[in-house]
Amino acid sequence: MTAETSRIEAFSDGVFAIAITLLILEIKVPPPGSGELSLALARQWPSYLSFLMSFAFIGIMWINHHRLFTHIARSDDVLLILNLLLLLGVIVVPFPTAVLATHWGGTNQRVALILYNSTYVFIAIVFNLLWRYASSDKRHLLAKDVDAASVQRISRQYALGPVFYLVCLALSWLSAAASLALNFAFACFFALPPHLVASNKNRAGQYRRE
Amino acid sequence: MTAETSRIEAFSDGVFAIAITLLILEIKVPPPGSGELSLALARQWPSYLSFLMSFAFIGIMWINHHRLFTHIARSDDVLLILNLLLLLGVIVVPFPTAVLATHWGGTNQRVALILYNSTYVFIAIVFNLLWRYASSDKRHLLAKDVDAASVQRISRQYALGPVFYLVCLALSWLSAAASLALNFAFACFFALPPHLVASNKNRAGQYRRE
Amino acid sequence: MTAETSRIEAFSDGVFAIAITLLILEIKVPPPGSGELSLALARQWPSYLSFLMSFAFIGIMWINHHRLFTHIARSDDVLLILNLLLLLGVIVVPFPTAVLATHWGGTNQRVALILYNSTYVFIAIVFNLLWRYASSDKRHLLAKDVDAASVQRISRQYALGPVFYLVCLALSWLSAAASLALNFAFACFFALPPHLVASNKNRAGQYRRE
Amino acid sequence: MTAETSRIEAFSDGVFAIAITLLILEIKVPPPGSGELSLALARQWPSYLSFLMSFAFIGIMWINHHRLFTHIARSDDVLLILNLLLLLGVIVVPFPTAVLATHWGGTNQRVALILYNSTYVFIAIVFNLLWRYASSDKRHLLAKDVDAASVQRISRQYALGPVFYLVCLALSWLSAAASLALNFAFACFFALPPHLVASNKNRAGQYRRE
Repeated sequence: MTAETSRIEAFSDGVFAIAITLLILEIKVPPPGSGELSLALARQWPSYLSFLMSFAFIGIMWINHHRLFTHIARSDDVLLILNLLLLLGVIVVPFPTAVLATHWGGTNQRVALILYNSTYVFIAIVFNLLWRYASSDKRHLLAKDVDAASVQRISRQYALGPVFYLVCLALSWLSAAASLALNFAFACFFALPPHLVASNKNRAGQYRRE
Repeated sequence: MTAETSRIEAFSDGVFAIAITLLILEIKVPPPGSGELSLALARQWPSYLSFLMSFAFIGIMWINHHRLFTHIARSDDVLLILNLLLLLGVIVVPFPTAVLATHWGGTNQRVALILYNSTYVFIAIVFNLLWRYASSDKRHLLAKDVDAASVQRISRQYALGPVFYLVCLALSWLSAAASLALNFAFACFFALPPHLVASNKNRAGQYRRE
Repeated sequence: MTAETSRIEAFSDGVFAIAITLLILEIKVPPPGSGELSLALARQWPSYLSFLMSFAFIGIMWINHHRLFTHIARSDDVLLILNLLLLLGVIVVPFPTAVLATHWGGTNQRVALILYNSTYVFIAIVFNLLWRYASSDKRHLLAKDVDAASVQRISRQYALGPVFYLVCLALSWLSAAASLALNFAFACFFALPPHLVASNKNRAGQYRRE
Repeated sequence: MTAETSRIEAFSDGVFAIAITLLILEIKVPPPGSGELSLALARQWPSYLSFLMSFAFIGIMWINHHRLFTHIARSDDVLLILNLLLLLGVIVVPFPTAVLATHWGGTNQRVALILYNSTYVFIAIVFNLLWRYASSDKRHLLAKDVDAASVQRISRQYALGPVFYLVCLALSWLSAAASLALNFAFACFFALPPHLVASNKNRAGQYRRE
C-alpha cells in the first residue's frame, strides 16, 4: 500500500465490507405464528448455506485483493477501470447466490447453477486482467522491491482461475452437487497463499511490506 | 491526498462505496413458482441495465472525485459543504435510475427521463462549483506542485458537463433512446483522463503524487 | 488526526457515510399504474423534505465531528464510549425523521415532533460531553499546538446546543412549523465555523493541521 | 496500527460500521392509521431494547478489536482468516437479536435465547483464537514495544469469555431474564480495559502507541 493506491484500497474495502455485511439481510426471522421455532429455523438451511458461501467467497476475494495491492504501488486510469470491474463482480455475487438458494432442488436448479458459475468465470477473468495489467513490465505499477518469483507465482495461480470455473460451469449439466462442491474447493484454493500453491518452501505466509 | 483532506476522502469513499453497493438490492430474485427461470431472469433486463448504468455513473464519479482530490491539498468549510452537495448527488442517483427503469416504455417515460437528466445537470454543476472553488488562485487549496496546464485541462473538461447534460435534457422531448445513449456517452467522456480529452501527448494517464 | 485517533475517525466516518446513504432507501419509486408520474412524484414531497433534512443534519454532524477531531490527538476508553454514544445519535436520526414525515399534518404530528426534537436534545448533550471531556485540562487529549481561544470558541458554541433544542422542543406545543424551522436554523448555525460565530476576524475558516 | 495491519483494520471498521448502522432498519415507523402514536411507539419497546443491545454489543466488540490491533503489528494468512471468522460473528449478531426480539415472551422464547447465547459463545471463542494466535511467541505478530504484562492481562480477560457465555447459555433453561441480564453484564465487563479488570494501578486506560 502506498499513498497512491491507498484511496483505491479504501474504496474497495468499503465495497467489500458492505457487500459482505448486506448478506445478512437475506436471512429472515421466522414470524411468531410459525410453529416450533427450532424447526422453522432448521428449515431455512439453504439461506444459511447461501450466506456462508457468499461470505466465504467475498472474504477470500478480499484477501486476494489485499494480496495483489501488497505488490501494486502505482495506479493509472486503466487499473482504476479494471478495479471497478472487479468490484462489479463483488457487488453482484449475492444475486446469483440468492437465485441458487431459492431454486436449489427445484426444476430450475440447472439454470441457477449456470448463472452462479458464470459469475465466477467472469470474476476469475477480471482478476487475471487486473493482475496481468498491473504486473506487466512495461507499466511499472508494481513496488520496486517486489521479487519476480512472487509475481510469477501469483500469475500462475490466477491463470488457473478461469479454467477451474469453466470446469464448474461444464459440471452444471452433469451434477449440481459436484459442481457446487468443486466451486467451493476452488475458493479454498485461492485462499491459500501463492507460495504454498507453488510448493515452495520459502517465507511462511507472512507479509512483509517495506 | 494530504492528512488535511484525507478524512474528506475517507467519508466520500464510504458514501460512494455504499451507494454503488446498495444498487444490487434493486435486483429481485424470481420466486420459485414463476415458470422457466431463464425467461424470468431475461424479462428483468431493465433492472440489469439500470443497475449497470448506475454502477458505471457512480464509478466514474468516484474516479473524477479521486482525480480532483489528487490535486486538492487543503480544505476549508466551503469545500466541505460543496463536497456534501456532490455526495448528495451521488446518493440520489439510484432513485431517478429506478424511476426510469420502472417507467421505461410506459406512458410516463418522458417525465422519468427529465428527472433522470436533471439529476445529471445538477451533479455536473456541483462538480464545476467544487473544482472552480478549489482551483481558484485566491484560496491556495491546491497542492503546490500541481501544474497549471493540468488544472486548466480539468477546468475545460468540466465546463462542458452542464452543457452536455442540458443537451440530454432537451433531447428528452425528441427521442428517449437518443437522450439516454448520449447521456451514457458523456459518462464515458468523463471517465477519460483530462489530458487525453485535451489531445495532449504527455504522460500516459499515470498518476504521480509526491 | 493522529495515528491514535485515526481508527476512531475511520469507524465514525463509516457510520456517518452509511447513515447518510441509507436515507435514500426511504424514497419509494411510484409504481407504473399510479397515474401521471409527475403528480405521483410531487405528492411525495414530505419524503424529499425528510430526506434533505436528515441529509443536512447528518452532514453537519459529520463536519462538527471532523472539526472536533482536528483538535483531539489522543483517545482513551471514556472517549471511545462517548464517541459511540454520539454515533448512536447519528444512526437513530433517520427513525424520528421518518416518523415525522409519516405523521406530518396528521393528528399525531405533535408526538412525532416531540420525538424528533428530543433526539436533537440528546445529540447536543452528547456533543457537549464528548468535547468537554476531550478538552479538559486534566486529560491532555488535545493536540499540543491547539490554541486555547479556538477551544473556548467551540465550547461556547456547543454549550448553546442543548438550550437551542430545548427551545425547539418547547415550541412543539405551540407551533409545529416554527419548531421545525428553528430546528433547521440551528443546524445551519452549527455548520458555521466557531470563529465566525464568535465574531472573530482571524483565520478564514481554513483548517491547518500540523 | 501499522501499514501492514491498516487494511485489515479498514476492512474490519467498514464491517463494524455497516453492521451497527443497519440495525436501525429493524425499527419500523408506525403507519398513520395505527391510533395514538405515543402508544404505538411505546408498544415497540422490544425493538428498541433489541436495537440498543445489538448496538452496545457491536460497539464493545469494535472497542475490543481496536484494543487488540493496538498491539498487533504484523499479519499473516491465518490471522486474516481468524479476523474474517470474527467479522462473521459481528455480521450475524443482528439475526439472533431479531429472533429474540420477535419471540420474547412467546412459547419459543427459550429456543431464541439458546440461539442468541450460542452466538456469543462462538464470538468469545474466536476472539480467544485470534488473540492467542497473534500473541504467540513463535509468530512475532505483536508490536516490539508491547509489554508482556499487558498481553497477559488481555489473555486472562479473554479466557473468561467462553466460560461466561456458556453460563449464560446454561441459564437459558432456568431463567430467560437472568440469562439476558448476565449476558449484558458480561458485555460491560469486556468494555472495561483489561488493566482495570486485573486490578492493576498503572496507566489510566489511555492508549499510547508509538
